[in-house]
Amino acid sequence: MHLLRLASVVCVASMAGVAMADEGMWLVNKPPLKTLKDTYKFEPTQQWLTKMQRSAVRFQTGGSGSIVSSNGLVMTNHHVGSDNLLKLSTKDNNLLEKGFNARTAAEELKCEDLELNVLWEIRDVTDQVKGSVKPGMTIADSGAAKRKAIDDIEKTIGEKTKMKAQVVTLYQGGQYHLYLYKAFTDVRLVFAPEESIAFFGGDTDNFEFPRYNLDCCFFRIYENGKPLNTAENHLAWSSAGTKEDDLVFVFGHPGRTRRSLTADHLRFLRDVQMPETLANAWRREIKLQSFCGRDAENARTGRDDLFGVANSRKAYTGIMGGLQDPKIFGAKVTAENELRSSVSAEPTQEQQWGSAWQAISDAEKFQKTFYVEREAIDRFKFSQLFHRASLILRLASELPKASNERLSDFGDSKLDSVYLDLYSPEPLPDALEIERLTISISGLVDKLGGDHPLVQAVLNGKSPADRATEVITGTKLKSIDARKALVAGGQKAVDASDDPLIKLAQVVEPRWRELRRMYEDKVESVERENYGKIAAAKFARFGDTIYPDATFTLRMSFGKVQGVAKDNTPAYTDIGGTFTRAEQRKGQEGFELPKSWWDSRSKLNAKIPFNFTCGADIIGGNSGSPVVDTKGEVVGLIFDGNVYSTVGDVAYDAERSRAVAVDCRGLLESLKVVYGANELVSELTGK
Amino acid sequence: MHLLRLASVVCVASMAGVAMADEGMWLVNKPPLKTLKDTYKFEPTQQWLTKMQRSAVRFQTGGSGSIVSSNGLVMTNHHVGSDNLLKLSTKDNNLLEKGFNARTAAEELKCEDLELNVLWEIRDVTDQVKGSVKPGMTIADSGAAKRKAIDDIEKTIGEKTKMKAQVVTLYQGGQYHLYLYKAFTDVRLVFAPEESIAFFGGDTDNFEFPRYNLDCCFFRIYENGKPLNTAENHLAWSSAGTKEDDLVFVFGHPGRTRRSLTADHLRFLRDVQMPETLANAWRREIKLQSFCGRDAENARTGRDDLFGVANSRKAYTGIMGGLQDPKIFGAKVTAENELRSSVSAEPTQEQQWGSAWQAISDAEKFQKTFYVEREAIDRFKFSQLFHRASLILRLASELPKASNERLSDFGDSKLDSVYLDLYSPEPLPDALEIERLTISISGLVDKLGGDHPLVQAVLNGKSPADRATEVITGTKLKSIDARKALVAGGQKAVDASDDPLIKLAQVVEPRWRELRRMYEDKVESVERENYGKIAAAKFARFGDTIYPDATFTLRMSFGKVQGVAKDNTPAYTDIGGTFTRAEQRKGQEGFELPKSWWDSRSKLNAKIPFNFTCGADIIGGNSGSPVVDTKGEVVGLIFDGNVYSTVGDVAYDAERSRAVAVDCRGLLESLKVVYGANELVSELTGK
Repeated sequence: MHLLRLASVVCVASMAGVAMADEGMWLVNKPPLKTLKDTYKFEPTQQWLTKMQRSAVRFQTGGSGSIVSSNGLVMTNHHVGSDNLLKLSTKDNNLLEKGFNARTAAEELKCEDLELNVLWEIRDVTDQVKGSVKPGMTIADSGAAKRKAIDDIEKTIGEKTKMKAQVVTLYQGGQYHLYLYKAFTDVRLVFAPEESIAFFGGDTDNFEFPRYNLDCCFFRIYENGKPLNTAENHLAWSSAGTKEDDLVFVFGHPGRTRRSLTADHLRFLRDVQMPETLANAWRREIKLQSFCGRDAENARTGRDDLFGVANSRKAYTGIMGGLQDPKIFGAKVTAENELRSSVSAEPTQEQQWGSAWQAISDAEKFQKTFYVEREAIDRFKFSQLFHRASLILRLASELPKASNERLSDFGDSKLDSVYLDLYSPEPLPDALEIERLTISISGLVDKLGGDHPLVQAVLNGKSPADRATEVITGTKLKSIDARKALVAGGQKAVDASDDPLIKLAQVVEPRWRELRRMYEDKVESVERENYGKIAAAKFARFGDTIYPDATFTLRMSFGKVQGVAKDNTPAYTDIGGTFTRAEQRKGQEGFELPKSWWDSRSKLNAKIPFNFTCGADIIGGNSGSPVVDTKGEVVGLIFDGNVYSTVGDVAYDAERSRAVAVDCRGLLESLKVVYGANELVSELTGK
Repeated sequence: MHLLRLASVVCVASMAGVAMADEGMWLVNKPPLKTLKDTYKFEPTQQWLTKMQRSAVRFQTGGSGSIVSSNGLVMTNHHVGSDNLLKLSTKDNNLLEKGFNARTAAEELKCEDLELNVLWEIRDVTDQVKGSVKPGMTIADSGAAKRKAIDDIEKTIGEKTKMKAQVVTLYQGGQYHLYLYKAFTDVRLVFAPEESIAFFGGDTDNFEFPRYNLDCCFFRIYENGKPLNTAENHLAWSSAGTKEDDLVFVFGHPGRTRRSLTADHLRFLRDVQMPETLANAWRREIKLQSFCGRDAENARTGRDDLFGVANSRKAYTGIMGGLQDPKIFGAKVTAENELRSSVSAEPTQEQQWGSAWQAISDAEKFQKTFYVEREAIDRFKFSQLFHRASLILRLASELPKASNERLSDFGDSKLDSVYLDLYSPEPLPDALEIERLTISISGLVDKLGGDHPLVQAVLNGKSPADRATEVITGTKLKSIDARKALVAGGQKAVDASDDPLIKLAQVVEPRWRELRRMYEDKVESVERENYGKIAAAKFARFGDTIYPDATFTLRMSFGKVQGVAKDNTPAYTDIGGTFTRAEQRKGQEGFELPKSWWDSRSKLNAKIPFNFTCGADIIGGNSGSPVVDTKGEVVGLIFDGNVYSTVGDVAYDAERSRAVAVDCRGLLESLKVVYGANELVSELTGK
């Protein structure tokens, strides 16, 4: 996202948790039926909703997608698939640069560690989770009781249904829903265009509109060695596409919002958490730029890290802009005061919920005392090898315990994902890993000071760069077999290991555990408990018209196809505009169209819509979401938001926030004319 | 500078303040005669030294240069002159891009606010300054007494000699020397090549070697409308140039080093000051990148800010790398312990100097309590318009006082520089100024938190970006006349002003003053006093073989022409290599040679040396320094250091630190063949 001028008019109503206009990331099992009927005269059937739900795909790596044929074909963004493109590339065959097109099943490339999830069923387990808390329990104990109840539910139902079971905390602790996913790990690459058209306009145009991007990538889900049969759960391709003012829906997995936080919690975000988060993003971005600038191989291997941090930094900048705007912050405070007054006015409400705000405020005050240290230590996982060493340590200590006694991400239901991560064959070039670990180590020195005992233990008499070099070049953990052997050998093997990276992870691990425990017991548990109360107060006051903050689970957003009237920004761009823009910005980084496009220029229909914007309320994690019309047919593919959407973590700008999508018509035209991907086109259109 | 792997071998002797090998930034009135004689069998005469001194030029904007003809011709780096090139450019005539060549005096372009200084005379005034302290004075009072004594000396001698008088604090307070400068403000642009060859290799190659840069720029000093007569004080051009292992000298103005700080002071630097400084550099660099990426005009106007911050960031990275290296830091501690033991062993020494280290330690502990706030407020001056508003406020309050009662930079002897700065006609585009001020304001919110009274007063209910926009678009201070009118009207006019920028500056000014006073009285005064004691202890122990930390005043460095043996880095590159490198890095930013070079390829002698490295001990501020041989003839032009030099702020890496220079022969060849600058060539060679 660009350094943006923030929305100065943000609908105050949105601050209260009551959705306005096209605001909202709605639960698919709790859609805003009244609003849709009143505003758009649209009444989705249960069948329609279920089909949308089961055609949506979650990428475990942090994105969205959709099933778009009866043979398990999955559509997502190029920038969601790019880490797989990188892993499948070699020094001499760079798929990011060249693109990829499998004309037959045999040509499809298997992605070694990609997991896709399809949400099959939802159950409300709020009573079970909350019921695990016994009277008289401390907050820490009741938090632990809930975590155990969640693990039990996930384990029991997971085993029974043979599905991936995840209990999702909604309304920051107000409700708990059990999500049952079909999980797929045999996923193969079908098609990707060149990065230069997928990410046309580069960093400059990111979070802007007008845009001209073919930000798409296709995969296929396999089961038992065959393409998955998705005859019942896939989206049809729209031949007509949309026109301005059409109602459209987005089904995807928005990662996180914090719109319902209390004012004091937002103060913590504004004055402690975001400054630290942003400072770290700036630091990493500059260091990765230097790394990538050093030579072509670094540029290739470091590009995903660099793109990731730049993208996050832009999103953080938007959030920080919102928090630092006294008008937005003031509206939040006003809405909170209003809710608190209404609670105070009712003695029973006051007694039940009145203390919630202060309790959260105290928890954040406490969190402030260790937040920076916890983050600095947590960032060691930025080195993938270090992260794997930590997983080995944790498996050794957790596996001997009962599932519900373990660290919450090591419960039985989570182990498959842990192993997928730990045994990933992802190539990890030494240079990049040394860089990542150097950044983490020097960051720790920065934050704790050079004399801190943990710092001295980590450095072991060397500079951060020398220490990282020694550990990364010396470790055997680059071998999957070596990782498996340590896990198989358990605590004894770990203790006996003289691997330098295991030794380093052992230095860091104890404090990491202490801080995590402090966070879970004295912050997270308090938040869950008290946001549960605040959610109850909101339900009491606003009824069922509120949506929960985003949680990287399936949500439905909706809105009109439209530009930003105030800025005279159009709703659509067309294919011809791509070439005009490339000519205007000639020589500028990010604006070089691939040869395939120049070669096809005369054959392409310049008038076909290429990208468009709509009012749907989205955020990071929604990348790759399908845009569908009221018939449920694919009309577009979300790949970005405009600058006004970047404040979306804390507030929705009803007037100007827009989601940015590839138009289904432009996508098809490019596949046909530029890439001659006739097999893919036939599969999409069913012709 | 690149993210560097730091020198793991740094001569421990250099830690003690005793110079080793080619280490040292020597005072020209206290050269290392014995070392030069013993190591190089070279004995410079006083006449030689004086000529070098009076041919050296200081750029007030932060660089070095030299007089290289009898008609006031000044040679410096392109990147030292570039801010003037920017100021002389317009949207349609970009001198940075195109270069510039004045074939006649009439074509030379006047630089409106460039001041050049030539150091004419040096007097030791240590006794006068230290003598101003009366027995029983507090540290704060004695600090003030010394500042007053300095102002008195500068004023009296300045008036008497009609020269610019500056007392320089050496050895962190150990000695005070009065420097008398001839100051010149009629300076005109003579020649500059295209930026693409001046800064060839761009950010990627900065602080690296081999290099291929024509980083030069020529100005001419005028006096009374005529070229200055410099028949007696200019450097002749060497026709032979150097060969490997030749002894060379660098006369320039290294900005600052902190090699003699105490261990606890270095801890403050490592754990408080540098983390804050670096974090701010990363932040500014990313924000300026976004700004410059937005459109071509931003790229043009913001480029100098961006280059500046990137360059500083690289230097800071080097310093931080040194401080975070336990070996380097440990050597500092060892050297300090050794010196302290020798002091303790002598009761009279212990009584005189023994308390110095603890006093400095306490002062830094105190500085820690307000350092971040002071920096955040001080950074408002990053906006040039805000800076001018502050100068107006300060002139209004200071001018009515006696010179030696004023803020130290508003004494009579400093006023010319203040006015030059304040009335600079430098174009300040709104977009850039808004960006600069937004960065400062949001940084203040970041550091103090959104609820801080000063933050709320600054924001005045608006977001940082909105507030900056309102103030910059609304201010009248863009007009020089408006600035002059306010200064002329004094405090009354300032108080009556409703200019939004004056009003904003008035909000910030009181706290700025408080913090400055705290710093001067409780930190700086303590440092000066106690570093004076430590310097005395060092003189007692090591005799006259130590050099003071750099202070942006004239110093002499020396060393052999040589590469880095350990890395197999050569000492020289040649002109032909430039084209090879451009071909190897084709398409990469920063590696596009200008058309003039491609056009001249066949006519250039490929074998002529282009850039070279030598062991001279330099640092930021040395940019543009001449490299001379033992005859005192120009053999090169310093423009960079290698990565191993970046730790130079705190330690010198004798084995690998190198200064990087344009070779006099390659410079001449380019002027002749590529630019046909025959007039300039004749003037340089005297032919």
